[in-house]
Amino acid sequence: MIKVVILGGGNLAFHLTNTMLKTSSINLVQVYNRSLSKIKYLKGKTLITNNIDELKDADIYIVSVSDNAISELTSKLVLKNKLVVHTSGAANITELQSNSRKGVFYPLQSFSKEKEINFKEVPFCLETENKLDFKLLKKISTLLGSNSYNINSEQRKKLHVAAVFVNNFVNHLYYLGNEICDENNIPFEILKPLIKETSNKIIDLQPFDAQTGPAIRKDSKTINKHLELLNENQQKIYSILTKSIIETYGKKL
Amino acid sequence: MIKVVILGGGNLAFHLTNTMLKTSSINLVQVYNRSLSKIKYLKGKTLITNNIDELKDADIYIVSVSDNAISELTSKLVLKNKLVVHTSGAANITELQSNSRKGVFYPLQSFSKEKEINFKEVPFCLETENKLDFKLLKKISTLLGSNSYNINSEQRKKLHVAAVFVNNFVNHLYYLGNEICDENNIPFEILKPLIKETSNKIIDLQPFDAQTGPAIRKDSKTINKHLELLNENQQKIYSILTKSIIETYGKKL
Repeated sequence: MIKVVILGGGNLAFHLTNTMLKTSSINLVQVYNRSLSKIKYLKGKTLITNNIDELKDADIYIVSVSDNAISELTSKLVLKNKLVVHTSGAANITELQSNSRKGVFYPLQSFSKEKEINFKEVPFCLETENKLDFKLLKKISTLLGSNSYNINSEQRKKLHVAAVFVNNFVNHLYYLGNEICDENNIPFEILKPLIKETSNKIIDLQPFDAQTGPAIRKDSKTINKHLELLNENQQKIYSILTKSIIETYGKKL
Repeated sequence: MIKVVILGGGNLAFHLTNTMLKTSSINLVQVYNRSLSKIKYLKGKTLITNNIDELKDADIYIVSVSDNAISELTSKLVLKNKLVVHTSGAANITELQSNSRKGVFYPLQSFSKEKEINFKEVPFCLETENKLDFKLLKKISTLLGSNSYNINSEQRKKLHVAAVFVNNFVNHLYYLGNEICDENNIPFEILKPLIKETSNKIIDLQPFDAQTGPAIRKDSKTINKHLELLNENQQKIYSILTKSIIETYGKKL
């Protein structure tokens, strides 16, 4: 049994606790949060506390709080020779201020409280100071059903930005597509199969090879017609992405 | 039986012919293409021709050629009181030059010859001059297993641009994510579950409500850190999309 204490009450902590409670070979012994009301859903399932000095003994302490709280919270931990990890994509491993072994256990996925998470679809990026701790994090990932990768702090920061492109920015392009539909009384539904196919395509193909459309064909007639149909903000984004596509393939083809 | 003649030898014509040959209640009587070699896969399955004056009798003639060939090809058609439709997202219905009933049968999906298409995932945008022809196009869509929508030429042009945002541009953002990974020896694999989840999310949620990330939080500290990690082209795109997200939610929240 791997004994785990989780510190935090956000979306990720919520999903981690719920899944760990159902995972054999993992014993979630306690959950800490500054405010007890946010973790009261755990009453009767595991120990809960809002007193940082009353943490139970465990093999690993998973700190799942907002980036700017990691340093302050971990500076209060009095845990000798224990493994303390954070779950942030952007924070360096050195943000951990505890006098103990450090690590990172970063799940690269988008979490919301309303939607159940299948950890099979959550890759973990792991970083530790020593090999034994790495093995422990890898084992926990495996028990949760997740893939895991050895990613250091520098790589993790880059990965976090890459995630902004393929998640936050992609969603904003969906929004702009939706906006164009709304402005013209077109049901956004029509675009959903295309959206699905676009994301499915890159399971087998490299995005570089999956590119289609007027920009890669340098079809300036269509590009200009499109620009005429757009508002100022849509035009700016259309132009800069078209330029980037043309330059990408100008360079590499 | 609905008798169909298809004109064209591109990706869409390829998938349409293959599917129609397997569809009961549809009789693909003939396929025309300027070059016979591109449609020789149909030998023994249906009649093929490269002579535009030898078209067989049918209920509908589907012109699936590149946008700039529609006008010239259809001006050569001598078909009295027949329904002639094109399959283009960008071309007006008036591009059809034949002396016959006109329509549009535009499948909003991304096609490639290598990948089989399930027409259940292909919505058709329909436009006709009269109701009876609309009913025929709707019936063909239904026989193919597809949903269909009443979309006029103006709407269709807008929809085509919207499709560039959610397909071409989204794929380019995947490419940029992949580029950042490659530059830092990170397997792009790690991002694929997030990409899948991002497109799944908007099946139930509006893109407006699904937005997450530093831009919507106006988290300028993270935004500036991210910008430092990017090359010039990535920075430009990061900045303009971040600005667009901030303005979108500044306006509407």
